[in-house]
Amino acid sequence: MPLYAGVELGGTKCVCTLARGHQEILEQITVPTTAPDETLAAIERVLLEWQDNEPVDALGIGSFGPIDLDRDSSTYGRITTTPKPGWAGTDVAMRLRRALSVPIGFDTDVNGAALAEAKWGAGQGLRDLAYVTVGTGVGVGLVGDGKPVHGLGHPEAGHIRIARMPGDNWPGSCPFHGDCVEGLASGPAIKARLGVEHLHDFSSDHPVLETVAWALAQLCHALVCTAAPSTILIGGGVVTGQPHLIDRTGQLLVESLASYISLPAGRPYVQAPGLGVQAGPLGSIALAMEAAA
Amino acid sequence: MPLYAGVELGGTKCVCTLARGHQEILEQITVPTTAPDETLAAIERVLLEWQDNEPVDALGIGSFGPIDLDRDSSTYGRITTTPKPGWAGTDVAMRLRRALSVPIGFDTDVNGAALAEAKWGAGQGLRDLAYVTVGTGVGVGLVGDGKPVHGLGHPEAGHIRIARMPGDNWPGSCPFHGDCVEGLASGPAIKARLGVEHLHDFSSDHPVLETVAWALAQLCHALVCTAAPSTILIGGGVVTGQPHLIDRTGQLLVESLASYISLPAGRPYVQAPGLGVQAGPLGSIALAMEAAA
Repeated sequence: MPLYAGVELGGTKCVCTLARGHQEILEQITVPTTAPDETLAAIERVLLEWQDNEPVDALGIGSFGPIDLDRDSSTYGRITTTPKPGWAGTDVAMRLRRALSVPIGFDTDVNGAALAEAKWGAGQGLRDLAYVTVGTGVGVGLVGDGKPVHGLGHPEAGHIRIARMPGDNWPGSCPFHGDCVEGLASGPAIKARLGVEHLHDFSSDHPVLETVAWALAQLCHALVCTAAPSTILIGGGVVTGQPHLIDRTGQLLVESLASYISLPAGRPYVQAPGLGVQAGPLGSIALAMEAAA
Repeated sequence: MPLYAGVELGGTKCVCTLARGHQEILEQITVPTTAPDETLAAIERVLLEWQDNEPVDALGIGSFGPIDLDRDSSTYGRITTTPKPGWAGTDVAMRLRRALSVPIGFDTDVNGAALAEAKWGAGQGLRDLAYVTVGTGVGVGLVGDGKPVHGLGHPEAGHIRIARMPGDNWPGSCPFHGDCVEGLASGPAIKARLGVEHLHDFSSDHPVLETVAWALAQLCHALVCTAAPSTILIGGGVVTGQPHLIDRTGQLLVESLASYISLPAGRPYVQAPGLGVQAGPLGSIALAMEAAA
C-alpha cells in the first residue's frame, strides 16, 4: 500500500496528514500559519520526520490562493496576490518538493477538497462537482470530468460579481471587488455589515442571513450556468454555524433559475460536504494520489 | 481519410457540412429552420444523399439548446425547454442516428464551435477556452482539458445574473431571468431597450453599446472565476456589426477583475473567433471526429 503525505495550507493553520488512503489516516499534525518561512520550516520538520520513518510515495499540497499552477511559469508553485501579510510571492510547492524529493500534487485547498469529495464524500461517483467554503473568504473548488478544473489559473468563483438582492445596497467588504460573493457572504463581510466581533452574536433568524443565502444562491446560479457541476457542496465556518443556510441557498437557487434549468430530482442539489472537517486534509491526500498515479 | 457529416442546427437555419477535416469541406447545404418535422426531414434527405454517394464514418450535431446530454436519460438527444415554438421536446440526435446508422456526436452548437476553435481556430493549442456568441441569444460553449464541458447539463452562461452597470436599471428582456446577460446584451434585448426594429439603426458610438459591453464583461468576469478559460472568443451578429465591442469588453473585464486575477500578457484575452462564420459548421465536424475516435 503506497504511503501519502498531505499538507492543507490554510490561512490560520496547516494540517499535515500521513495516510494510506481516506480510510487509513495514520497521523495528523497541525502547525499554526505564522510568517511564511517559519510556517514552511515547521511543515518540513513534520514531513521529514515521517519520511525518515518510512519513505513517502508522494506529497499533496492544497493551499490557500491564489496560486500559480502554470508549470511553464517561473513562479510555478507560489502564492500570488494574496492580501495575507508576507505571503504574496511565497514559494510553497518547489520548496516542499526539494525537501522531500517525491512527486508532488499542488492545487488550491478547495480544488483538493472538491477532488476528495468526488472520490470519497458527498459527490462519490460523480465526475463533476463544486465545493464551496464560506469562512474567512469564499473559496470554490471545481472537479470536471474527474479532475480539478484548471485553465488560465484555478477557479476563484468567490470573486464573481452578482445581481444584488432587491433593496440591499450595502457596498460589500472585498478590497478588490466590493460586493462580490466574498464581499457579501464571508465571515468578515457579515461582521463588517453588522459591526459585530463574533458571528455567534446573532441568532439563526437574523435578517443578514437572507443576504448571505442570496449571495450564495447567485454564486450557485453562476456555477450551474458555467461549470455545470452535478452537485454543489457548501461548508466552512459561516455555514457550519448556521446549517439552515444551505437549504435556504438551495431554495433561492431554484427561484433564481426560474425553471430555465432543472436541477436533478430526488436529492438535494446544494448540500453539506460529506467529509466534514476532513475534506481539506483528505484533499491533500487525494492530490498526492493523483501525483503518484 | 475518414468522411464526416455535420449538422449545425440553428434557430433560423441549419448548416449541413460534408468534410474530411477542417481544411477539406466537400459540400455545405443550408436548410431553413421551420417546424421540427419538416426541418429534420430536409436534413435527413441531405445526409442520406451524401451517405448513398459515399459512406459517412460519423455524424456530428451541434444544436441550439437547451438539450438533454445525459445518455442515461429517456429524453437523451432532445431539445428541452426552448421557447422556440414547436421545438420543446423534439428528438434530434436519436432520429438522425437512426437515419444514418453511424456513430454520432451531439452537443450544443456553441460547445461544438468552442471545440473547433480549440482544434483549428483562435484557440489552437489551448486546452481550454470559452466561445461566446451574441445574437438572437447569448450562447456560451466551453472546452476544458481539451473536451466540451458537461456536467449537470451543458453551459448556459448567457443566463447568469450579473452586477448591473451603475445607473442602469432597465429590467432586461429575458422571459426567464429579466436582466441576465442574454436579457441585456442579445440582439432582441438591444432592440427592445431602444424600441427599434433593426440593429443597424444606431451608430457605433451609441450609449447602449456601453451597456452591452458591460454585460459581456461581467459574463467574462464570471467565466474567468469559474471555468477559467485561457481565452474568451466572442462572435455572433451583434458583435460582428460592432467590432469595437470586443475591445471595450476586454477593457471593462480588466477593470472589473481589479488586479485580483491577471490576464495573460502579450495577447488579447477577449478576441474574435478565428474560424469566423465557419466556427459553427466546423463545430459539427469536430463533434463527428470526436464520435469516431
